[in-house]
Amino acid sequence: MSNVQVLPLLEPEAAVAPCCPPLTERPFSAEEAEVAARMFKALGDPVRLRLFSAVASHEGGEACVCDISDVGVSQPTVSHHLKKLKDAGLLTSERRGTWVYYRVEPSVLKAMGLLLTTAAGT
Amino acid sequence: MSNVQVLPLLEPEAAVAPCCPPLTERPFSAEEAEVAARMFKALGDPVRLRLFSAVASHEGGEACVCDISDVGVSQPTVSHHLKKLKDAGLLTSERRGTWVYYRVEPSVLKAMGLLLTTAAGT
Repeated sequence: MSNVQVLPLLEPEAAVAPCCPPLTERPFSAEEAEVAARMFKALGDPVRLRLFSAVASHEGGEACVCDISDVGVSQPTVSHHLKKLKDAGLLTSERRGTWVYYRVEPSVLKAMGLLLTTAAGT
Repeated sequence: MSNVQVLPLLEPEAAVAPCCPPLTERPFSAEEAEVAARMFKALGDPVRLRLFSAVASHEGGEACVCDISDVGVSQPTVSHHLKKLKDAGLLTSERRGTWVYYRVEPSVLKAMGLLLTTAAGT
């Protein structure tokens, strides 16, 4: 008798899937592939991947360039790669005093994990 | 009194984690980063990602070039990208008659998903 139930239920998972369904669900559209490929590409470089895991596993879940010195590249190169990870939406950053601190964006990690979920829980 | 229990227990998860721990667990070594970056890089191209999702979501979990025609690139380009995905260990292939059929390697998807697991289930 009333129309109060027209709002769709929001599924909790939707919040962590900003772009795309699991890769095994259906063929991606060109737009979905653009967004998702950007994230994969950002992690598709060994140095960037080491830096990303250094930030992600650092105490408190954040790190500045000053915390990362053992990947065998110069500090400007570290900064360059951290910026690329930020541009891809994988890290967020905040300047505090002299240093810029980087932090992993957990919702993006979850969304990427969701892309790699295989169908029907297999 | 005996040494019969020296064999370590095999954890089921170990089978699907050929290279690396979750990215949030500890900084990756150079070797781990090389292996994992190769997989991410393979999916870091929009056309390859569309082809991968086309194969992964195709009926029966496999597809040949003949099944994939709607990503807007030529058949030789499709073949080229499918080969790259295979070289990265993301697809396996089998020739049957005229066509090569590609299939997603589920253990690799799981291993990549594991990389993106956030620490402590968050």
